[in-house]
Amino acid sequence: MDSELDELFSFFREIDKEKKIGRQTYLADGERKENDAEHAWHMAVMALLLKEYANEDVDIVKVILMILMHDVVEIDAGDTYAYDEDGKKTQREREEKAADRIYGLLKSEKGSYLRGLWEEFEERKTPEAKFARCLDNVQPLMLNAASDCKAWEEHNTKVSQVMERNKITKDGSETLWEYAFENFIKKGIRSGKLINDMNIEV
Amino acid sequence: MDSELDELFSFFREIDKEKKIGRQTYLADGERKENDAEHAWHMAVMALLLKEYANEDVDIVKVILMILMHDVVEIDAGDTYAYDEDGKKTQREREEKAADRIYGLLKSEKGSYLRGLWEEFEERKTPEAKFARCLDNVQPLMLNAASDCKAWEEHNTKVSQVMERNKITKDGSETLWEYAFENFIKKGIRSGKLINDMNIEV
Repeated sequence: MDSELDELFSFFREIDKEKKIGRQTYLADGERKENDAEHAWHMAVMALLLKEYANEDVDIVKVILMILMHDVVEIDAGDTYAYDEDGKKTQREREEKAADRIYGLLKSEKGSYLRGLWEEFEERKTPEAKFARCLDNVQPLMLNAASDCKAWEEHNTKVSQVMERNKITKDGSETLWEYAFENFIKKGIRSGKLINDMNIEV
Repeated sequence: MDSELDELFSFFREIDKEKKIGRQTYLADGERKENDAEHAWHMAVMALLLKEYANEDVDIVKVILMILMHDVVEIDAGDTYAYDEDGKKTQREREEKAADRIYGLLKSEKGSYLRGLWEEFEERKTPEAKFARCLDNVQPLMLNAASDCKAWEEHNTKVSQVMERNKITKDGSETLWEYAFENFIKKGIRSGKLINDMNIEV
């Protein structure tokens, strides 16, 4: 028994590094950018309080575990910014290697279960993965809009890039996608900080 | 419907402030202290992977929601260090007021449900509250031990203080308490950074 606990606590100490993986999204007050652990915490709260807005019934425990762990691979692979086209080319390979190492720290079935959940999140076929991916997009849209669209401005982001990335958001929740489009994306366009290359009316 | 979503998203933006509430616990590498959101994320992962070590069967969704939200009151009330005896005298009053304001942002039943969960966590009578409180103690014990016991050293912490605070840890999980005592507290004593005023043999 102690050896399973030793393994689990080694894993918990290892994933502590996720608190140091920076993202491109600013906190709501715009003072600094958030990190992966903070992002996962925020998404998990949102999942629990928004679950009835998912398109399909979801196993919420599975959604939460997926959300809490989805960025653990970035401990080795780093955060790839949503609109970094070069980075995205090698992202999958870097993340696969990271998943092998990090989930491999757990020799018990817990390791293979978590690895499987991460694959499921990446493939976004199940209701749980679709909903988790939806929140993975809606949470930064909310923070970008709240922080005076600073991150979009810094990266000269075009609305076409945001729409492309968010093609999958509605697969998890039509309602949350519509809400995010109306309240967060349109705010970015109105502020002039999200380049309106699609002539969307706001 | 949109008004419920407006209320929920205002709440999500409000609790973003939890990412700026500092704690006294260092990250495992000792480079900086962690914040409340990071602590809650870490505890939630631990709860999901350690649930079979709880003394009693627990409703894990309730445990997770309790864990993710338990420090939200600190947005107004601030973090009270575990061994700050003066701060602890006014802690309850400050936190009650904070709970009124923050959970009060949600007019729907979700607000009163979350407020009730926080009370349940504070009262630590249910299996879920006992297990959540156990992890609220075990997570910083793990990080203190990992970070070369820096936080204990900085605060001239005595082992009697740690034992007093941890009187309730075993109520959630005898196994996790024993593990934490053997591996984290005894490490602190051996390193000389946790003052051994109880002559515990290590």
